[in-house]
Amino acid sequence: MQIGIMGSGLTAQTIGSKLVSLGHEVMLGSREEAKPSTVAWAKEEGGQHALYGTFMNAAAFGEIIFNCTMGSASLAALNQAGVENLSGKVLIDTANPIDRTTDRWTLTVSNTDSLAEQIQRSFPETRVVKTLNTVNANVMVDPAKLLERTHVFVSGNDIEAKAVVVRILRDWFGWKEIIDLGGIETARSVEMYVLLWHNLRNAISSQRFNIKVVTSG
Amino acid sequence: MQIGIMGSGLTAQTIGSKLVSLGHEVMLGSREEAKPSTVAWAKEEGGQHALYGTFMNAAAFGEIIFNCTMGSASLAALNQAGVENLSGKVLIDTANPIDRTTDRWTLTVSNTDSLAEQIQRSFPETRVVKTLNTVNANVMVDPAKLLERTHVFVSGNDIEAKAVVVRILRDWFGWKEIIDLGGIETARSVEMYVLLWHNLRNAISSQRFNIKVVTSG
Repeated sequence: MQIGIMGSGLTAQTIGSKLVSLGHEVMLGSREEAKPSTVAWAKEEGGQHALYGTFMNAAAFGEIIFNCTMGSASLAALNQAGVENLSGKVLIDTANPIDRTTDRWTLTVSNTDSLAEQIQRSFPETRVVKTLNTVNANVMVDPAKLLERTHVFVSGNDIEAKAVVVRILRDWFGWKEIIDLGGIETARSVEMYVLLWHNLRNAISSQRFNIKVVTSG
Repeated sequence: MQIGIMGSGLTAQTIGSKLVSLGHEVMLGSREEAKPSTVAWAKEEGGQHALYGTFMNAAAFGEIIFNCTMGSASLAALNQAGVENLSGKVLIDTANPIDRTTDRWTLTVSNTDSLAEQIQRSFPETRVVKTLNTVNANVMVDPAKLLERTHVFVSGNDIEAKAVVVRILRDWFGWKEIIDLGGIETARSVEMYVLLWHNLRNAISSQRFNIKVVTSG
């Protein structure tokens, strides 16, 4: 498939490389047509399956779109991508609306709204599914790295789009335990969880972890 | 020990009964001196170890205090308890600042502040430790109910108070995996996690669950 990835950072590159390794054609999009980091990524990947371009180029290219921009920049990036290039497509939103201007993370939107809802409202014809934002990039594409099976969550209004994303998570990335939280408004809870992720990272001095939901049987 | 519990609901009664069963003297406090639910609890427990009274009575009685009121009522309850009855004591804050006026939970304080911080600021001489708010009352006092060992978190500024609480969690309630998240400001993250708890409860149709932090070893 042709996949468009909004973003040029670690998450975009990690997901991009994983998808290229699976045989997909991937275009990383950024504000500039040839951002040094995306050019370097494409060169490192080699071949004709790793491409780069503007947000608009990547959105037009992708049959499925990943949002891997920083949450504070996501809406601007998607606006540059253009509503016509996103319409009807599944948009997998992995971003977190974190204000990183201070050591103590806070969210730029939370509690009564979320980034995923803002995106869904701004692009009503796009099928937004929130997922993967609760883990580090390396865990996103290789959950088997962890000592036990852990959980990942999906939130979205479009049942078929969620089914597409569940197959991607399972068949491409190797997730075995996927919980459907409900509509796109449940993205609030996974975005708000990120502050606990941040404190856990500090407490255990590692980014390679995730949570497993344990019941009483 | 003498333990004062602020609150008369399920969490207060469940923790109260557990502490009575361990041989402690417990007083449940509420707005009224003889609230029907606390009177019934004391009668059911029998003996002279299960007591009830006002918030002020329970706070004066306790060497250690549990806050098991609803988060939206916690500050009012603690103000009624009286600063002189809380000063110098360890206050174990299990409450969540949930606005339950709609089906979709939101928090009354979050992101840049938390209930635990509000309590600590209002009662600077009290040694506030946030914990147990991430699980249902039944799991709080019996984590072995779950199929695997899961994690509980502590947040607080007073190292010695946290050590006291860690011993209570371990020796009285049976928690084996306790993560110190840091200062009282880290309570924001566990309070904000509660929205994910709520969505998970709906997704798995059970309140008896908790999360386990899984690393890469």
